[in-house]
Amino acid sequence: MGGDAGVEMTIPGVLRALATHDDLRVILVGDLPLLEERLRPIGADLRARIELRHADVAIRMDEKPSQALRKGRRVSSMWLALEAVKQGQAQAAVSAGNTGALMAMSVFVLKTMEGIKRPAIAGLWPTMRGHSIVLDLGATIGADAEQLVDYAIMGEAMARALLHVEQPSVGLLNVGVEEIKGVEEVRRAGRILRDAALPIRYHGFVEGDDIARGTVDVFVTEGFTGNIALKTAEGTARQISQFLKVELRASILTRLGALLARRAFRRLKEKLDPRASNGGIFLGLNGIVVKSHGGSDALGFANAMKHAREVARHDLMDKIAHDLAAKKMMGELLRTGQRQASATQADSVRTGT
Amino acid sequence: MGGDAGVEMTIPGVLRALATHDDLRVILVGDLPLLEERLRPIGADLRARIELRHADVAIRMDEKPSQALRKGRRVSSMWLALEAVKQGQAQAAVSAGNTGALMAMSVFVLKTMEGIKRPAIAGLWPTMRGHSIVLDLGATIGADAEQLVDYAIMGEAMARALLHVEQPSVGLLNVGVEEIKGVEEVRRAGRILRDAALPIRYHGFVEGDDIARGTVDVFVTEGFTGNIALKTAEGTARQISQFLKVELRASILTRLGALLARRAFRRLKEKLDPRASNGGIFLGLNGIVVKSHGGSDALGFANAMKHAREVARHDLMDKIAHDLAAKKMMGELLRTGQRQASATQADSVRTGT
Repeated sequence: MGGDAGVEMTIPGVLRALATHDDLRVILVGDLPLLEERLRPIGADLRARIELRHADVAIRMDEKPSQALRKGRRVSSMWLALEAVKQGQAQAAVSAGNTGALMAMSVFVLKTMEGIKRPAIAGLWPTMRGHSIVLDLGATIGADAEQLVDYAIMGEAMARALLHVEQPSVGLLNVGVEEIKGVEEVRRAGRILRDAALPIRYHGFVEGDDIARGTVDVFVTEGFTGNIALKTAEGTARQISQFLKVELRASILTRLGALLARRAFRRLKEKLDPRASNGGIFLGLNGIVVKSHGGSDALGFANAMKHAREVARHDLMDKIAHDLAAKKMMGELLRTGQRQASATQADSVRTGT
Repeated sequence: MGGDAGVEMTIPGVLRALATHDDLRVILVGDLPLLEERLRPIGADLRARIELRHADVAIRMDEKPSQALRKGRRVSSMWLALEAVKQGQAQAAVSAGNTGALMAMSVFVLKTMEGIKRPAIAGLWPTMRGHSIVLDLGATIGADAEQLVDYAIMGEAMARALLHVEQPSVGLLNVGVEEIKGVEEVRRAGRILRDAALPIRYHGFVEGDDIARGTVDVFVTEGFTGNIALKTAEGTARQISQFLKVELRASILTRLGALLARRAFRRLKEKLDPRASNGGIFLGLNGIVVKSHGGSDALGFANAMKHAREVARHDLMDKIAHDLAAKKMMGELLRTGQRQASATQADSVRTGT
């Protein structure tokens, strides 16, 4: 539910997703009379796959997370959707509503997984080679090395589920300049990923332009940088398409050329269509939450639902929980190993060997 | 000097810049016999505006800054070029060499300006409205609020010089999510810029997609994020142009269309040509240093020289020194004001008013 256009956008999106995926069932949470009215025209077969639940309160797009939590507790559509995931009635919650509120409420209702301090938002990013996953896109600002490693684990599991890659490669975003100070957390995360014998194909450091190249399947970075990289790329794509439009309209010849080549432009538009990769997936919670872009349309919302379905079908949460447990065990083994190593060393010092 | 292609690229670049700007004179530092040989074919009028200096050592592109400093001290072309700026023999140094080495040597030879902890790299960024300046593009990782304010001051002075805007607007890059923790330094910088009565037109926070829009003249961010934003945008531009090429070649019709509209594509290419905005300007040093992209060509190098000339002509360093002094004074006034205010408050408490 939610988003800039509300049910005008989400209901057509839901119907589109239901029509595409036969196995999909939906619980719609919102203003019951309104939902019933909007669903009146649809056929009985689709209607049978939709359950309706009433919510008194809708969180507005401009409300602060803290406000939303106070006002929306137990009564808002957002809360009730998350509650349905918590109770196991739904395998995922999808919302086009207020991102900050959704994140705050998701943490409150679903709680973070064991060992995860703060969630991340992961997104599909169209690249020259197909799609990659980039996280964190802005859920958490300022991750330390341990958190970056957790992002790598979670993003890798998501890549297996969504990109259908068996052994996804993982890269850490870094800057190219050598010997620069201050990226200690990124370097430390790199050392852990390289040395900790985690079941992850760690590629090494990657730079900003590697994202478009699709150098790795999973790009890991801290949320501030990830958010700015995402929006910078979106802005650049819009800028180029606007430049192109202006230049193609400049003369009769270019207009004619554009007309003849229109199929190429349509395909370019499809390839870059943000609706195709719509849906930021909240990772690190005990349940799947997908955030559809607030300004997206029905097709975009349907795609967010498609991604939620994919992730749910592939038991993403179980995979992540499994990998985090492996990491924890590796960490303990490593620490034990280090203790033993230093104990042995201390012994050799004492015995003078 | 320097860069991936060495004198094969820089000498044609220098000649091009000399031909364009009548007032330009150049000191070329490098291997003297090689330089003399390469300059043999050129006319006497151009030759008269070039002074040659010999350097025994050239810093390689893959050398670490610390290595470069040890090996290149007093004898490398990079060092001698910076020394010429320090001695007032040159108004700016331009290099296509190793960025890390150039930065380390610049700090060593020219020293940072009073009150500046670490330099920033500022670049011209093509936007929908023309050009904006973005800094820091990766000189320094992890700026605190005071450093971000210094970047704002330096970037604003650079915008006056390079963009010819009288009162450039300045924005701080931030993420859109409300109430998120951890961007305290950015917020604090925002408060200083808003409240400190600096002679700066502070716009407020901006997001990643505002860069392409050209929402402000100067975008200020910390170097890690700035570097990743820049490279992500470059990658996105390459990705779109590659997609477009592929699609335009897909059929006879699209090929014909592309042929007819070729003027539009040429103009798009010109608008996005990274050579036009080539030249990262090191800010915060007692002298102008411009870093040309290592992989650029003669036209790109000539543009880096053009930007160095512009910045030198507009007394950028004096403007920055003046503004930093104003900031310092404002800071002292503010602190005095705060002391007086708290003294008055303390008095009122004591006297019970």
